[in-house]
Amino acid sequence: MISIILLEPKKPGNVGAVARVMKNFNFSDLVLINPKCDIKSKEAVDRAVHAKNIIENAKIKNISYLKNFDYLVATTGKLGTDYNIPRSPITPAQLADKLSKIKKVKIGLLFGPESYGLSNKLILQCDFVVTIPSSLKYPTLNLSHSVGIILYELFQKSKERKQGEQIIPMAKKEKEHLLKIIYNKLDKMHFTTKEKKETQKLIWKRILGKAMLTKREAFALFGFFRKIK
Amino acid sequence: MISIILLEPKKPGNVGAVARVMKNFNFSDLVLINPKCDIKSKEAVDRAVHAKNIIENAKIKNISYLKNFDYLVATTGKLGTDYNIPRSPITPAQLADKLSKIKKVKIGLLFGPESYGLSNKLILQCDFVVTIPSSLKYPTLNLSHSVGIILYELFQKSKERKQGEQIIPMAKKEKEHLLKIIYNKLDKMHFTTKEKKETQKLIWKRILGKAMLTKREAFALFGFFRKIK
Repeated sequence: MISIILLEPKKPGNVGAVARVMKNFNFSDLVLINPKCDIKSKEAVDRAVHAKNIIENAKIKNISYLKNFDYLVATTGKLGTDYNIPRSPITPAQLADKLSKIKKVKIGLLFGPESYGLSNKLILQCDFVVTIPSSLKYPTLNLSHSVGIILYELFQKSKERKQGEQIIPMAKKEKEHLLKIIYNKLDKMHFTTKEKKETQKLIWKRILGKAMLTKREAFALFGFFRKIK
Repeated sequence: MISIILLEPKKPGNVGAVARVMKNFNFSDLVLINPKCDIKSKEAVDRAVHAKNIIENAKIKNISYLKNFDYLVATTGKLGTDYNIPRSPITPAQLADKLSKIKKVKIGLLFGPESYGLSNKLILQCDFVVTIPSSLKYPTLNLSHSVGIILYELFQKSKERKQGEQIIPMAKKEKEHLLKIIYNKLDKMHFTTKEKKETQKLIWKRILGKAMLTKREAFALFGFFRKIK
């Protein structure tokens, strides 16, 4: 189950356009976190055209709702610099490839506000980051265009998916448990600065997010880390 | 050189959104055929954001301007039925693959009006058709979303393209000359009905459009058809 989450959208037209393109690609679960506009205004409904039902059924929530997802994917148009760990992004095609192989978990695709995108703090809370490659001269896409391109890639991939291999990834609870074990080990290790330790933690969080380990792999890692002294 | 051509756009907001996503993916040549709205209105300019220059430099033309392109690509959301020759479409990814290998010709991507898309008659004038695969329940994308997804695919491909093989396709003049030779042969052949002959012509036009023959291949075909009695 994949949900589209808009954080504090400001323009009702964008919400309508997102609803339309969701329906174009067979998505239906729209979540709006603290919307800054009237999402049932005429502009939103007009732009949704035949996807009014998606707006009517949209969930209006606050930020704590994000805790309900097993995996949260951040989307950003701002590319990280060379060694900017939280932002090191994957492409929409890579995301589609990853998501086409999994089932039984709740995945949230998180899109930031129109004007400034997701904060670094929120990006850090996500499991990984996806970025649409675009012009260096004008990289920032319109919100509904970003949603459209990512859902387009997911739709293409879902069509290709047959009865092929499907993977059950570890759920949120297992992921958190595994991270706790790793952080615990890290806390007992010696690093020359506190920053180095924090960087280590970030990298581990990112790796576990990106890898989308299977339950089996996760249990193997539990065993591995328990053996480390 | 690839141009984006909007036929009779009705909504200035769509024109602005198209301009923005063109700039996002490094395209700049926008052609508007008989626009049905004020393309320099506030709504268009607001939606273009940092791509106002693309609107300012847009070419406003009438339908005869289409003759200037070596290859015209029709875009349509309406899928053909089983044996609907003019519409048998390729995907945006296939289009990107095709266009990434060619140079030195003028290519026009033609998008129809918001409400009803391109007519069959116009589609017939194009060399081939591209369709974005989408939900059977609601296949029709917003105009600017269609443009965005197709340009996204072209942009990905152009990034992959290195100093690799590039092909010089036959130009419009050669394509027309070749078709003339083939039609001439067809006219001298016997078919049980007139429709069968017309279908043959259509298929040949479509094949030459899709194949994007190189100059060398085109000259080989000239020779071949001249030899047929």
